[in-house]
Amino acid sequence: MNKEMRALGETVKQASFRLAATENEERNRLLLAIADALEAGKAEIFRANGEDIRAAEADGIAAQLIHRLKFDEKKLHDVTEGLRALAQMEDPIHRVLCRRELAEGLEMTQVSCPIGVIGVIFESRPDALVQIAGLCLKSGNAVLLKGGIEALRTNSVLYEIISGETARTGFPAEGWIALLKSREEVAEMLEMDDLIDLIIPRGSNAFVRYIMDHTRIPVLGHSSGICHLYLDRSADPAMAARLAVDAKTQYPAACNAAETLLVHGEAEEALLCACRALREAGVRLKADPAARDRLMEAGMEAEPLSEADYGTEYGDLVMNVHLVDSEDAAIEHINRYGSHHTDCIVTEDRAAAAHFFALVDSAGVYQNCSTRFADGYRYGFGAEVGISTGKIHARGPMGLDGLCSYKYILEGSGDCVADFAGGRRQFTHIDRRG
Amino acid sequence: MNKEMRALGETVKQASFRLAATENEERNRLLLAIADALEAGKAEIFRANGEDIRAAEADGIAAQLIHRLKFDEKKLHDVTEGLRALAQMEDPIHRVLCRRELAEGLEMTQVSCPIGVIGVIFESRPDALVQIAGLCLKSGNAVLLKGGIEALRTNSVLYEIISGETARTGFPAEGWIALLKSREEVAEMLEMDDLIDLIIPRGSNAFVRYIMDHTRIPVLGHSSGICHLYLDRSADPAMAARLAVDAKTQYPAACNAAETLLVHGEAEEALLCACRALREAGVRLKADPAARDRLMEAGMEAEPLSEADYGTEYGDLVMNVHLVDSEDAAIEHINRYGSHHTDCIVTEDRAAAAHFFALVDSAGVYQNCSTRFADGYRYGFGAEVGISTGKIHARGPMGLDGLCSYKYILEGSGDCVADFAGGRRQFTHIDRRG
Repeated sequence: MNKEMRALGETVKQASFRLAATENEERNRLLLAIADALEAGKAEIFRANGEDIRAAEADGIAAQLIHRLKFDEKKLHDVTEGLRALAQMEDPIHRVLCRRELAEGLEMTQVSCPIGVIGVIFESRPDALVQIAGLCLKSGNAVLLKGGIEALRTNSVLYEIISGETARTGFPAEGWIALLKSREEVAEMLEMDDLIDLIIPRGSNAFVRYIMDHTRIPVLGHSSGICHLYLDRSADPAMAARLAVDAKTQYPAACNAAETLLVHGEAEEALLCACRALREAGVRLKADPAARDRLMEAGMEAEPLSEADYGTEYGDLVMNVHLVDSEDAAIEHINRYGSHHTDCIVTEDRAAAAHFFALVDSAGVYQNCSTRFADGYRYGFGAEVGISTGKIHARGPMGLDGLCSYKYILEGSGDCVADFAGGRRQFTHIDRRG
Repeated sequence: MNKEMRALGETVKQASFRLAATENEERNRLLLAIADALEAGKAEIFRANGEDIRAAEADGIAAQLIHRLKFDEKKLHDVTEGLRALAQMEDPIHRVLCRRELAEGLEMTQVSCPIGVIGVIFESRPDALVQIAGLCLKSGNAVLLKGGIEALRTNSVLYEIISGETARTGFPAEGWIALLKSREEVAEMLEMDDLIDLIIPRGSNAFVRYIMDHTRIPVLGHSSGICHLYLDRSADPAMAARLAVDAKTQYPAACNAAETLLVHGEAEEALLCACRALREAGVRLKADPAARDRLMEAGMEAEPLSEADYGTEYGDLVMNVHLVDSEDAAIEHINRYGSHHTDCIVTEDRAAAAHFFALVDSAGVYQNCSTRFADGYRYGFGAEVGISTGKIHARGPMGLDGLCSYKYILEGSGDCVADFAGGRRQFTHIDRRG
């Protein structure tokens, strides 16, 4: 273990305790100061970003990645607006979740509090650094950040501005944010399970899987997004076509894009409408034998598929088409091959939708809307640190709530358990309202 | 991977989906039926338990373990009362946590739901099997149980009664409970991260640590309980003595028993009162040099201590005594050497208590009461499946709430993200009350 890295972890841990004790107003003031300082320092940010982009171009990095790397006036505007919106929000910590008299004179209060130290490993977008730092600061969490190496110059300037404002404004938790610069430091971070409370990796499936396998620290994230659109017997064909195109093509690389179209055998028209619209939108179809026959009869081509395709996240304009003979068969398929992210039923039948909601084991269960809505901004969470497909702690898009834990405060006046064990005192368990 | 074990996991997983869709009334009826059947089958339970105890005695197992193994009228009464109390409680699942209009005609509902399949590995007490099964059933979770090998006969009878009632009453989620019988099956269970959502190990620290290191499945539990009692400058000496004795001696083997007494250098009388009371209660004291000097002057003996003692869970009538020169030094000691379980300040000063509550990073932060109160029953949770010292998901004593997750339901009428991205529609994000 590198001593410097360990010392950095200790510094961030100590800062996390002081940060947890700060008032909402103090955190809001710093959020606003950072927003102002980012605007004031934009020339420096853009210059560093220009260098990152030129270096990436010289290295022959793909145009899509370079696009993500860009930090311009629009991105600056988005992140500073985001910070100012966070400063307007209610304090997610220090909230009373439950207040209860345990026994006469012995009061329990459950209050929300930060998780502590969060390690976030994110991909090439430097705007993510500001978003994540803002969410962590608002929720009172200290953070160790590691961005993509190709964005290091931009990230370093952003980090300097944030930590600079922390010092300049006399914020009582200096050291609450740290930027890691090398892959070796990430490996060391994964070993500091006594100092880091949660890891949030944002990147490819293989990367998230790797992180999960190499640390004892809890990891929140999604390793893949295999979302389904199921056209039920009573699906409206025009709606089915519209939703299939949106769910597949509006942003095919997103984790909430749909990969498989499941169709009830009796929803003939919905099948044909949806597949025709998908083909017109440039989507390659892969279909099971029964679906291929139906499509061929209607003059549409589809490639054969294998079972492995049901578990593949294409991230591209390719979609599986699979006929099922009942809603339960669709549900079973989703629970077996899906990634428990977001799945939608297209139906006019409320009972069928209720059955789908109850039995599909996914973070998002939708009726008659695109799977692409699964997102913290669209849910109104302000922003998200990530989307979780696990069911422990946070599920689905994770905003400020997902960055909070809680603690139990007990206030007594010398109360001993022996008195209760001996029958001399009794528990009352009276909930206090408000 | 053993094929039978895999098939069992699949069966439980499939049952978990049906169980998640059951109504509270269905689950309550089964809880009551199980309580009745346990009473009706008590002769068989006691006979099997008698065999377990005789076998344990023949194996020379310690008297304390044999005591825990015992399942008698009192235990039967406790567990059947527990099941009936669960049947009275509100449904922890199907609760609306948030309802929000995302946009006109697009409604989001966040509802609580079960986690899915829980793997619980518990120690020798067979009554724990019934408690855990009851909590899982009430919260709609399927469960794989593995008890101590020495309680296998009793556990098998209890399991047969529970699964027998599930079949007899036509409960719609047969297979929701399974009993593992060998250690090999536990190793296989730890590998089924696609079928099991959460592992709750209850046992020794080394055992919990082992489980955490050998599975990709999330694990909730506590690996150790190093709790502190801090006597602040303004501590009432008589109260300090009473609380020290209760926290250390009321049940020294419990994880919420205190291991270290921290004392402010100016709380001379509290130090002497507490240590005198501890010694009278048969507690061996280990003290730092300054504390030893003070105690010797007052005619009390104490052994020297080493730094390692601060991180030791004695589970016995031994306690560290450490002088600190400020409340902040006490807090730093607790955050460094403690296990984030439960820590108490004894003080008459409200500001000192508030400071302690804000800065001590533990699941329970107490003022003027014994650390021994950290327990699901005492908190009024009905029962607990365990105590978590982690900050992810559940913290502290874990009852029904800790066994729940949530999902987001979206109901629309053909809503596409492209309309919002294209500026043709706007999000409204209007929270619905109630």
